[in-house]
Amino acid sequence: MADTKPGQGVENLSVVVHGVGDLRLENRPVPEPGPNEVLLRMHSVGICGSDVHYWQHGRIGDFIVKKPMVLGHEASGTVVKVGSSVTHLKPGDRVAIEPGVPRENDEFCKNGRYNLSPTIFFCATPPDDGNLCRYYTHNACFCYKLPDNVTFEEGALIEPLSVGIHACRRAGITLGSKVFICGAGPIGLVSLIVAKMMGASQVVITDLSSSRLEKAKEVGADFILQVGKDTPQQTAQKVEELLGCMPEITIECTGAEACIQTGIYATRSGGTLILVGLGPAMVNVPIVNAAVREVDIRGIFRYCNTWPMAISMLASKKMNVAPLVTHRFPLEKALEAFETTMRGEGVKVMLKCDKNDQNP
Amino acid sequence: MADTKPGQGVENLSVVVHGVGDLRLENRPVPEPGPNEVLLRMHSVGICGSDVHYWQHGRIGDFIVKKPMVLGHEASGTVVKVGSSVTHLKPGDRVAIEPGVPRENDEFCKNGRYNLSPTIFFCATPPDDGNLCRYYTHNACFCYKLPDNVTFEEGALIEPLSVGIHACRRAGITLGSKVFICGAGPIGLVSLIVAKMMGASQVVITDLSSSRLEKAKEVGADFILQVGKDTPQQTAQKVEELLGCMPEITIECTGAEACIQTGIYATRSGGTLILVGLGPAMVNVPIVNAAVREVDIRGIFRYCNTWPMAISMLASKKMNVAPLVTHRFPLEKALEAFETTMRGEGVKVMLKCDKNDQNP
Amino acid sequence: MADTKPGQGVENLSVVVHGVGDLRLENRPVPEPGPNEVLLRMHSVGICGSDVHYWQHGRIGDFIVKKPMVLGHEASGTVVKVGSSVTHLKPGDRVAIEPGVPRENDEFCKNGRYNLSPTIFFCATPPDDGNLCRYYTHNACFCYKLPDNVTFEEGALIEPLSVGIHACRRAGITLGSKVFICGAGPIGLVSLIVAKMMGASQVVITDLSSSRLEKAKEVGADFILQVGKDTPQQTAQKVEELLGCMPEITIECTGAEACIQTGIYATRSGGTLILVGLGPAMVNVPIVNAAVREVDIRGIFRYCNTWPMAISMLASKKMNVAPLVTHRFPLEKALEAFETTMRGEGVKVMLKCDKNDQNP
Amino acid sequence: MADTKPGQGVENLSVVVHGVGDLRLENRPVPEPGPNEVLLRMHSVGICGSDVHYWQHGRIGDFIVKKPMVLGHEASGTVVKVGSSVTHLKPGDRVAIEPGVPRENDEFCKNGRYNLSPTIFFCATPPDDGNLCRYYTHNACFCYKLPDNVTFEEGALIEPLSVGIHACRRAGITLGSKVFICGAGPIGLVSLIVAKMMGASQVVITDLSSSRLEKAKEVGADFILQVGKDTPQQTAQKVEELLGCMPEITIECTGAEACIQTGIYATRSGGTLILVGLGPAMVNVPIVNAAVREVDIRGIFRYCNTWPMAISMLASKKMNVAPLVTHRFPLEKALEAFETTMRGEGVKVMLKCDKNDQNP
Ligand SMILES: NC(=O)c1ccc[n+]([C@@H]2O[C@H](COP(=O)([O-])OP(=O)(O)OC[C@H]3O[C@@H](n4cnc5c(N)ncnc54)[C@H](O)[C@@H]3O)[C@@H](O)[C@H]2O)c1
Ligand SMILES: NC(=O)c1ccc[n+]([C@@H]2O[C@H](COP(=O)([O-])OP(=O)(O)OC[C@H]3O[C@@H](n4cnc5c(N)ncnc54)[C@H](O)[C@@H]3O)[C@@H](O)[C@H]2O)c1
Ligand SMILES: NC(=O)c1ccc[n+]([C@@H]2O[C@H](COP(=O)([O-])OP(=O)(O)OC[C@H]3O[C@@H](n4cnc5c(N)ncnc54)[C@H](O)[C@@H]3O)[C@@H](O)[C@H]2O)c1
Ligand SMILES: NC(=O)c1ccc[n+]([C@@H]2O[C@H](COP(=O)([O-])OP(=O)(O)OC[C@H]3O[C@@H](n4cnc5c(N)ncnc54)[C@H](O)[C@@H]3O)[C@@H](O)[C@H]2O)c1
Ligand SMILES: [Zn+2]
Ligand SMILES: [Zn+2]
Ligand SMILES: [Zn+2]
Ligand SMILES: [Zn+2]
Repeated sequence: MADTKPGQGVENLSVVVHGVGDLRLENRPVPEPGPNEVLLRMHSVGICGSDVHYWQHGRIGDFIVKKPMVLGHEASGTVVKVGSSVTHLKPGDRVAIEPGVPRENDEFCKNGRYNLSPTIFFCATPPDDGNLCRYYTHNACFCYKLPDNVTFEEGALIEPLSVGIHACRRAGITLGSKVFICGAGPIGLVSLIVAKMMGASQVVITDLSSSRLEKAKEVGADFILQVGKDTPQQTAQKVEELLGCMPEITIECTGAEACIQTGIYATRSGGTLILVGLGPAMVNVPIVNAAVREVDIRGIFRYCNTWPMAISMLASKKMNVAPLVTHRFPLEKALEAFETTMRGEGVKVMLKCDKNDQNP
Repeated sequence: MADTKPGQGVENLSVVVHGVGDLRLENRPVPEPGPNEVLLRMHSVGICGSDVHYWQHGRIGDFIVKKPMVLGHEASGTVVKVGSSVTHLKPGDRVAIEPGVPRENDEFCKNGRYNLSPTIFFCATPPDDGNLCRYYTHNACFCYKLPDNVTFEEGALIEPLSVGIHACRRAGITLGSKVFICGAGPIGLVSLIVAKMMGASQVVITDLSSSRLEKAKEVGADFILQVGKDTPQQTAQKVEELLGCMPEITIECTGAEACIQTGIYATRSGGTLILVGLGPAMVNVPIVNAAVREVDIRGIFRYCNTWPMAISMLASKKMNVAPLVTHRFPLEKALEAFETTMRGEGVKVMLKCDKNDQNP
Repeated sequence: MADTKPGQGVENLSVVVHGVGDLRLENRPVPEPGPNEVLLRMHSVGICGSDVHYWQHGRIGDFIVKKPMVLGHEASGTVVKVGSSVTHLKPGDRVAIEPGVPRENDEFCKNGRYNLSPTIFFCATPPDDGNLCRYYTHNACFCYKLPDNVTFEEGALIEPLSVGIHACRRAGITLGSKVFICGAGPIGLVSLIVAKMMGASQVVITDLSSSRLEKAKEVGADFILQVGKDTPQQTAQKVEELLGCMPEITIECTGAEACIQTGIYATRSGGTLILVGLGPAMVNVPIVNAAVREVDIRGIFRYCNTWPMAISMLASKKMNVAPLVTHRFPLEKALEAFETTMRGEGVKVMLKCDKNDQNP
Repeated sequence: MADTKPGQGVENLSVVVHGVGDLRLENRPVPEPGPNEVLLRMHSVGICGSDVHYWQHGRIGDFIVKKPMVLGHEASGTVVKVGSSVTHLKPGDRVAIEPGVPRENDEFCKNGRYNLSPTIFFCATPPDDGNLCRYYTHNACFCYKLPDNVTFEEGALIEPLSVGIHACRRAGITLGSKVFICGAGPIGLVSLIVAKMMGASQVVITDLSSSRLEKAKEVGADFILQVGKDTPQQTAQKVEELLGCMPEITIECTGAEACIQTGIYATRSGGTLILVGLGPAMVNVPIVNAAVREVDIRGIFRYCNTWPMAISMLASKKMNVAPLVTHRFPLEKALEAFETTMRGEGVKVMLKCDKNDQNP
């Protein structure tokens, strides 16, 4: 299989952040897979807000870039070599990559919430390298085979989609749910797509930006609401008017204090407010309003157990995520791609890592 | 509103079973609504297998027709008069009717499972009269206003749809679920429609009849499987081959012993087998197979808390139940309609109870 | 049954709040039970913080005393007369009273969360009268028969106990749970008792007052922690040290902002913080800390479906709530009783409403 | 630590089944721990019905003894050596051993139900060796440190206790539950103990044997019922009479067809029947009775995520399992111990594997 294995001296172009504002394209050695790993030829890798953030600020909360780190965690590629213990994958398999891999079988792993494991490995979260490069090794159990009718880009989009899945699942969205989503960035949009797939009858989504709301309309929003100077109570009131009733579920995807407040006021008694957006450490919230109406406030941290169901949905062709990809750049033009993302253009920027195949 | 109120001497043509094989169209007085009731001019009423069964056999299990009983429980109509305490409905409102109304606020009602209340009133279950007639009174809390964009027939179909909703909800169907449904009668078909709406990625459905499977294909089945002489294990094997894996969820809608056995063998470890079909009192089942693979076996009894979500879905126009209605008869031709249903023709036969409006 | 029925001209001494600081003992007519009601001769009624609050401030949040209102909602008594439709109770039955009775069968009632019904009747919440009086009528479905081995005072204590049950149930306390409770007032104490009953292996409880902590020790706390000038993080740290690990569950029973913050910091990833205490409308909380560790924040509003399980536990004699009653007064000395509660003495003050039986 | 490490030439006496009826005590080499393993000096190992079954029949279902296999899976011991990657344990630590260790991180492991992983390693299930021997290596993540106040025998009893925990957890036992348990063997008894710990107010337990029922009484049964010639319906009726109502939960711990039938008839509508007992592959059951009353039928397969909560409970001293141990034998007398178990004497027979410490 000469065509699937990188030969000697093959270069491994990688997008590496060295410090605040210091992003470099550099060659790194092609790694060898360990016994439980596979070596992948990367195909498509989306740029996430967090990638840009590490580049611009060198840190997110307590995660600080202290040594050069490869970026990228929304990825798919092709297996080129398998470790000695790997049995469910073989060279040539196209896979989507789940970037979080628990390091120890602790209480969180054992009870099915491995995303909460404090020692988890996570691509492009310091100090762990990501996969925005040509060749990359990853734990084989966290590489999921893509059916032929699912593209590499769909495979890469499973990562942000998983945030939406985990959010909607923890929200308890079901048949006929009325849902309110704050923020129409990539995460708000995937939450919207997933909410509709899980049976939500009507979704209203807000944003400051009309272009983002247009995209929301395109991917299925029933109502869009551009917010400006309204108070949280006023926005909540408008949401209720649009839906004809208060939503059972609100998914907050901005991190803004005002939106969290709105989320509490807007959600129907007995419902759930999901916090996806990450904003200031301390926020002022009308907690008694939530408490006495038994509106649960549930955050999410990434996701767990989402790749198989996402692949299943993508393969069924019921779920259309293609409109999310608005820009594509070859890996060599990664800096240009990052600047595009930073300017907030479009929704999802894809980097194409395989010189011989730049298709979706 | 002279046009919405039945005047004096107005007749109330009703479909009444008097005993085994004895079905009559007869005039009954127009009832007066009690304080918590509404008087309805009936519009569309579907015929259910149980209606036919009471006509043919005079009983279902312990429920025995001992005195003449009006049939019909899949119904919608228009409010013509409201009782003194009713505030949320007014004459002219178009409503769908939930046929089960608890008589006392017992432990089952209090904890949200009112369908299990042993003293519940239920249309066309002896000794309670149904609503296959011109005028009918019902508890106003169990009449749900239909939006303008939902037809009366959609309103009537909410009753069988509710069986599918309750089944799929108790099954825990969610995004990406693989589902196996046994039986493509009306109940299998609504379960199929609801399963897809709740996010099932692929559904395989079986039946003995190819015409029923054709209808299943029409309303969204991903795979159909005509069963004949296969053993339960063989059918389970075929289901797995079609899906590429064992389904997490099986919904049994035939009541046949062989199908319950198939359901156990077919369902993935940790999954759920829902029993909707009602067959022989005692069945022989491979219970250890289910137990050691933690395949839960959960029956359903009708439904609860389904009308609001069904209306919400119908109003969203995402869910298409119209293909289920294959025959329509004016109320005057009820006997002909019952014979059609008995012959197993089509899927759902609708009786049109309003002389002045026979539209869907 | 001349002895169980109040004769003509019988007086009905009642504790009535007329406005801020204006509490009066006055005679009211003995009411007649409606068809679904029972007339009760009251026996024991506990004084709740909210009773004192209405007396001292004339309001709690949006609930304002606009006309004279009888206080009291922690109550038990004896049936003296039953309404025409009542079948499950008869004169002479000893009952505990659930003070919240839904007025309409709305979506919240139907799905088993009737405590959230916006139009619910609730004893001693304006404008609804309570039951701190000699004779009182109540919906029979919300009067629960007490077995002979459960005292009237235990019956009255089911009301505060229910807050603890609802809190612990929504917290998901199960076998081996480590639990942290903030505040050792009556509500913190009942939560502690219930948590142990539901399988919590270790409970740590905090308060400002050492005497309240002594009582907590008496009713089963594994660890007590007197808090003073510590920051929320420091208190969280001490809780972890006492338990040997972070608690999966925190039950906040003070309403203090600092305690809510402590609750977030203290709770283990993937755990639950229950908000029982009601403090300022807006609070400042480390919401990102909760969100990224998936610590759910769930408020509670009173309770639903708790009386049967509470009676079952009391009858089993496994659960000892007797130590909660620290003071008793005859109804005639209600003002003295209220002043005792206001001074924060003891835990629960009981008013004895039956002149002929002042036993527990 | 010369005293904790087995020197060269140390013998490793082991209880090995070679085929039907062929049980031998033989010396095996002391194994070396792999990187993620620990080497343990075994202390206490209980004999399980399955151990006896492999000895008497050479198989259980599809699990067939094809080569000599060490028995034993209810075990505790002391760490004598740790593998290179083990960090949370050190020589001298006293541990309880969870016998099931998943071999791959498959879908079942990832979602927290690792007991269902089809390739799981399980002590003393062919072809995997158990730990009824002097020295044994085990995956360190499945060895749980015992606090000083928990004995080795309590540690060993966590294995059968875990079956009870998993059963009661899947049953949803909570405060005030009324529970019916069929069978007072070791598994019925641990289920009883756990049910009471989780808040069950009353438990009725049945058996054929009066001595087993006496033991049930000793460990906390509220009611015992010796069954004989009664039909399933009659037994169900007696259970209801004893409890004063139908139990919400039934835990079947015999595997007998009649008991499964009884379990269905006995359980309250909306309740749960847990199948722990393993009997004939096919059984005849009144499935419609269960289905239309929404009595869920849920099997269990061993357990998962139980050791930490069990240790927590044992350390709290609230849970008393000591009365379960009725016999003790030194490892050298293993054959005598097995014969005692086979005769059905007592409840749990413990083998003491450490020559220098035969204490509980
Ligand atoms: N919890 C997790 O595991 C997780 C995972 C991924 C992303 N996130 C977070 O989710 C959030 C969204 O991610 P994204 O990639 O979509 O970000 P984004 O910045 O692209 O999108 C946020 C959107 O919110 C809009 N917005 C800002 N303030 C608003 C307001 N007051 N009302 C309405 N809309 C407003 C912005 O216009 C923007 O379109 C970020 O905070 C990110 O950190 C969390
Ligand atoms: N549990 C409840 O609350 C509830 C409510 C409504 C209906 N039901 C029951 O649901 C079942 C289905 O109702 P329906 O109205 O669709 O009935 P139906 O008789 O119209 O449909 C049953 C279908 O199953 C097919 N079938 C029969 N044997 C089969 C087999 N071995 N394999 C595959 N398919 C087979 C038949 O060909 C038929 O198409 C009935 O048993 C009914 O009593 C239960
Ligand atoms: N959500 C509901 O449905 C519901 C129902 C009943 C009561 N409540 C609320 O529950 C709370 C407790 O009720 P209660 O009757 O026990 O009140 P309480 O005032 O008698 O007890 C509160 C206790 O908290 C202690 N406390 C105050 N600040 C503290 C701090 N910083 N740290 C630790 N302890 C502190 C006090 O010393 C006191 O002992 C109140 O806020 C009440 O309004 C809510
Ligand atoms: N599902 C699992 O993961 C799992 C795990 C462990 C054990 N088990 C099974 O649990 C069952 C109980 O295990 P055990 O070790 O206690 O077995 P055991 O044989 O010691 O106890 C069974 C008890 O049931 C009683 N019994 C038999 N028939 C009865 C009847 N008709 N009515 C009432 N009681 C009756 C017997 O007298 C005996 O006391 C066994 O079937 C075992 O295989 C299952
Ligand atoms: Zn990301
Ligand atoms: Zn029907
Ligand atoms: Zn109160
Ligand atoms: Zn065992």
